[in-house]
Amino acid sequence: MATASKSTADHLRAALDGPWREVREQARRQLDDDRLYGDPFLDYRAARARVLDQMRLVREFGYAERGFRLENGGTGDPGGAVTGLEMLAYADLSLWVKSGVQWGLFGGAVENLGTERHRDVVRRLLSLDLLGCFAMTESGHGSDVARLETTATYDPATAEFVVHSPTESARKDYIGGAAEHARMAAVFAQLIIEGESKGVHCFLVPIRDERGSDLPGVTTSDCGLKGGLPGVDNGRIRFDHVRIPRENLLNRYADVTPEGTYSSEIENPSRRFFTTLGTLVRGRVSVGGAAAAGARVALSIALRYADKRRQFADTETGEEVVLLDYRSHQRRLLPHVARAFALAFAQNDLVRRMHVIQTGQDLDPHAQRALEKRAAGLKVAQTRHATRAIQECREACGGAGYLTENRLVTLKADTDVFTTFEGDNVVLTQLVAKELLTAYSDEVRDLDALGWVRFAATMARDVVRESSGVRQLIQRLRDRADDGIDDGDLSRRSVQLQLFADREDYLVRTAAHRLRARAQETGPFEAFNNAQDHILVAGEAHIERLVLEAFIEGIAGIDDPAAREVADTVCDLYVYSTIEQNQAWYIMHRFMSVDRAKTVRRGVNELVDRLRPQAATLVEALGVPETMLHAAMLDDASVHQR
Amino acid sequence: MATASKSTADHLRAALDGPWREVREQARRQLDDDRLYGDPFLDYRAARARVLDQMRLVREFGYAERGFRLENGGTGDPGGAVTGLEMLAYADLSLWVKSGVQWGLFGGAVENLGTERHRDVVRRLLSLDLLGCFAMTESGHGSDVARLETTATYDPATAEFVVHSPTESARKDYIGGAAEHARMAAVFAQLIIEGESKGVHCFLVPIRDERGSDLPGVTTSDCGLKGGLPGVDNGRIRFDHVRIPRENLLNRYADVTPEGTYSSEIENPSRRFFTTLGTLVRGRVSVGGAAAAGARVALSIALRYADKRRQFADTETGEEVVLLDYRSHQRRLLPHVARAFALAFAQNDLVRRMHVIQTGQDLDPHAQRALEKRAAGLKVAQTRHATRAIQECREACGGAGYLTENRLVTLKADTDVFTTFEGDNVVLTQLVAKELLTAYSDEVRDLDALGWVRFAATMARDVVRESSGVRQLIQRLRDRADDGIDDGDLSRRSVQLQLFADREDYLVRTAAHRLRARAQETGPFEAFNNAQDHILVAGEAHIERLVLEAFIEGIAGIDDPAAREVADTVCDLYVYSTIEQNQAWYIMHRFMSVDRAKTVRRGVNELVDRLRPQAATLVEALGVPETMLHAAMLDDASVHQR
Repeated sequence: MATASKSTADHLRAALDGPWREVREQARRQLDDDRLYGDPFLDYRAARARVLDQMRLVREFGYAERGFRLENGGTGDPGGAVTGLEMLAYADLSLWVKSGVQWGLFGGAVENLGTERHRDVVRRLLSLDLLGCFAMTESGHGSDVARLETTATYDPATAEFVVHSPTESARKDYIGGAAEHARMAAVFAQLIIEGESKGVHCFLVPIRDERGSDLPGVTTSDCGLKGGLPGVDNGRIRFDHVRIPRENLLNRYADVTPEGTYSSEIENPSRRFFTTLGTLVRGRVSVGGAAAAGARVALSIALRYADKRRQFADTETGEEVVLLDYRSHQRRLLPHVARAFALAFAQNDLVRRMHVIQTGQDLDPHAQRALEKRAAGLKVAQTRHATRAIQECREACGGAGYLTENRLVTLKADTDVFTTFEGDNVVLTQLVAKELLTAYSDEVRDLDALGWVRFAATMARDVVRESSGVRQLIQRLRDRADDGIDDGDLSRRSVQLQLFADREDYLVRTAAHRLRARAQETGPFEAFNNAQDHILVAGEAHIERLVLEAFIEGIAGIDDPAAREVADTVCDLYVYSTIEQNQAWYIMHRFMSVDRAKTVRRGVNELVDRLRPQAATLVEALGVPETMLHAAMLDDASVHQR
Repeated sequence: MATASKSTADHLRAALDGPWREVREQARRQLDDDRLYGDPFLDYRAARARVLDQMRLVREFGYAERGFRLENGGTGDPGGAVTGLEMLAYADLSLWVKSGVQWGLFGGAVENLGTERHRDVVRRLLSLDLLGCFAMTESGHGSDVARLETTATYDPATAEFVVHSPTESARKDYIGGAAEHARMAAVFAQLIIEGESKGVHCFLVPIRDERGSDLPGVTTSDCGLKGGLPGVDNGRIRFDHVRIPRENLLNRYADVTPEGTYSSEIENPSRRFFTTLGTLVRGRVSVGGAAAAGARVALSIALRYADKRRQFADTETGEEVVLLDYRSHQRRLLPHVARAFALAFAQNDLVRRMHVIQTGQDLDPHAQRALEKRAAGLKVAQTRHATRAIQECREACGGAGYLTENRLVTLKADTDVFTTFEGDNVVLTQLVAKELLTAYSDEVRDLDALGWVRFAATMARDVVRESSGVRQLIQRLRDRADDGIDDGDLSRRSVQLQLFADREDYLVRTAAHRLRARAQETGPFEAFNNAQDHILVAGEAHIERLVLEAFIEGIAGIDDPAAREVADTVCDLYVYSTIEQNQAWYIMHRFMSVDRAKTVRRGVNELVDRLRPQAATLVEALGVPETMLHAAMLDDASVHQR
């Protein structure tokens, strides 16, 4: 077969595909299979059964094995696992979620929190011989998981834990797999020894027998219908003094001897808990990636439609005008495309960092901590992007966009909960901001709100430290530019990045001052609450800066000049449209004159004008093959008049 | 029964209920009936059948009759019809849409475009003896309905019209009722006489026999599943030379003699078409109202939940904190509540104006035209509000918000298409802006794009004229204030309204200048397209000003001082949060200094603080009874820990 010379779109797609581009290419071939797509006409029980069948097909692709160590029967390629599974989002998000629950959350808990004594569980869950669920969230506590109420009380007489739901709000809730298919749960519960809680730990609790009936003491129920994800059987679990062997404690970070003596290498209980949670970072990395993948599908559909569908005639020519020739339509879609590019680069960078850490190439605890912060931030950015971009795509396709056969409403409904699960976006943004304020100090994480506010008030060393990286990049960008320095030229990348970094620095610094000033007057809760809007914006500014850096680094990796030029224009659009959203802030804080700000809207208009002729290239670059779009209207002659 | 003294909430609810408050009160009693709510477990065919059954219950309430003249068997109260039917949105939006299709769109077409010879059709559709649909939109043309392709060719030999779909894109599409239930369609088609089109007219075309089979020449099909509204049977219709009697032309504005002579009291074909469309204004009025009603249900659910649900503990007290005590939560919900108040007043005002015109008390064509513009603008504002507010409510309720049993996802899915149907929001905003630019001149509406841009360039007299009304109101507000004039005080209503009006004036004026400047260089299409973002913002600014005026007038009608004080604070929040969104614009165009702008964010924070203790009152004022919320989580002890 002759090798065709690569097009601009090919180069761009390769760049957006990132380090695991071969996994993506392979997945594109494997997933072009109608059996892997959802059937919206199935009722929810049939949809769940179908997804389970689909998982058996996916198992053969080998994505899941990549997520596990060699000694556990895996192939030891976590980056490839996240990337390969992410591609399922192009086919069906229920399939992605249910696969993620089985191999990512349940499997990840056993893999990362268990030890060699749980090796057999890993083998069985990998092969789907054992279906599991991840029972962390409770009806009463979702975001505040340190306060989970389920208890696992050690009974030295029998060397068993007694798992129990002591209150109504201790009920495990929204648990994927708990309604029907899961036979075993990874249950997060307060470990109680001699009446004293050692904090939240994870336990393997069998919940159903082979025929699917609840085991004694276990009561499961069904969350019923949801806004989307019909193929996922979310359910609830109550435990009534359920006994499990001592060995079912996932004992990587803590163990209990048969006699009932507790030991852990991590003394501080709060730090122990956060270390436990930290090993589960892959979940957040994956959710962000899948949300962005869903958005890419939607944007591909909406762009292809907009480039074909006509409405209203140009009176000069008499011809009806293609939607994407309207400026309003360009402005509603293309900035989302720019953000999709930016986030794809950022996600690739995140997965690479995760891979390095999880394959033991970087054992620096600060790096692990930084990874968690970055994963939280990008989870927020990507899921928010998905919610907004897919909504815009739906509306931009009018009535056709509302029909299920055109897929946008399904993408919207399925991704909608992504802003909530694996960490509510508001809570995560706050977490990111707190990390910024507290300069990576390990102790701080363990502090209660009071201690935290006191600490934060001592000031944000972190900002300076982190910013040193930004400063170097800005300097490099400046050095690269041939022309003389003109700090006001918004089209220069160094000026753009400086603006993003300035905003972040300023917001973090002033948030710290504000906290310090209020804490003495009103107490920590009030102080924090009073500054909450400020703190959240600081977190967002940080995320935006990280994403821009990733975009810049991503472009630097493109060799083809034509492809790089397109990517540069897309990056400009990302920058200009982001600045446009924060324009008031820039002016009010004197980072931008009114005259300069006025050039921003004009800049967005010029950039969408310039990108309009590249629409087809941009769609191809997004990397969702046309055969995987499954949107009837794209091939329906009835909606494309003339 | 003793009359309890009215609470603040009662006074507010009465004010928000508006002129047809008795209709609303009656509906609250009638709709508290489980048979009227959707059952999400039904498949789509069963859901459609159920909604049809529900319509038979609704028929007994008498809302529909209000929409028809006495001589047609109605009770002649269009304001009451719109208001009564709107209340169905509290129960189930599929029921609202299907009722609206039958009695509003199909019924309205026959009532308003037909004559006495169609009286029997009205009687039969009123009683549900005849089920109809409104077949305007085609696959190829939705927004640009003047270019519909379906033809109705007069055949003098038999005195019949031959209705035909000449192309694939002429297929009628998305038509509510066309998939299953409708027996007759009000079909919009080009009326052809001797090979010449007289423009789009409306015809009654029987499409199914009594047993539901397609009649000869008619091919209906099913749009299948949609993003929401499962109880509505949207479908497609193709016509293959279907013959209907001459009398089936709805002949209020135009007729054809048996010999084939066309006559109309309105000579200009374009004006005739817009007059035809104008009589259908009730559809847009209704869509906006129902969207806002859906948003009120969602906000009521989310606020009640936020006022009960706790997460994370205040370390000083050890108590877990109610969500609504977090500033971030106040800021995400309360501005939407403020907008819900504003839009409720604006909708009441709109319905009142519509009622006056449609009951023949005001026959001024300018008033009809102004009504259409206002209806278009408020349709945009209310449907956009619904999409955003309900999305925010879903997210603010976390995982519980994603469960169908808590209703938010259904509200989101059902209202999602409201931004599209009865006029795409972008197209309608443009229409509003064009009207502003062209000073109500009747001729202009008939111009093509070329003529329109030329006309607009002669300048916007309208702005000045319309603004005179605003100026009077501003003066009245100033006179009412006791204190000396301080133009900078943003807390003063006159200053607020002036800011809204200034923004509108400036945007309209500069849009006209921009069009004029470009039209000579680039031709009208380019000129218009180039300014499209500007024009859309001008339209939005106009709508925002109208809404504020309605809020101000609404407050003036509240006698109770405590209720008025709450309403005033809510109005301030509406103003501050709207200005906050447009802050960059105000600063860049020198309508606001940076220092003044900084007070805006602080102002929003202070206002949400002040309204927080009134949350229960605000919910009651929104007027959705607790028994109609049907959200399981509100009564589920499991999610309300402690």
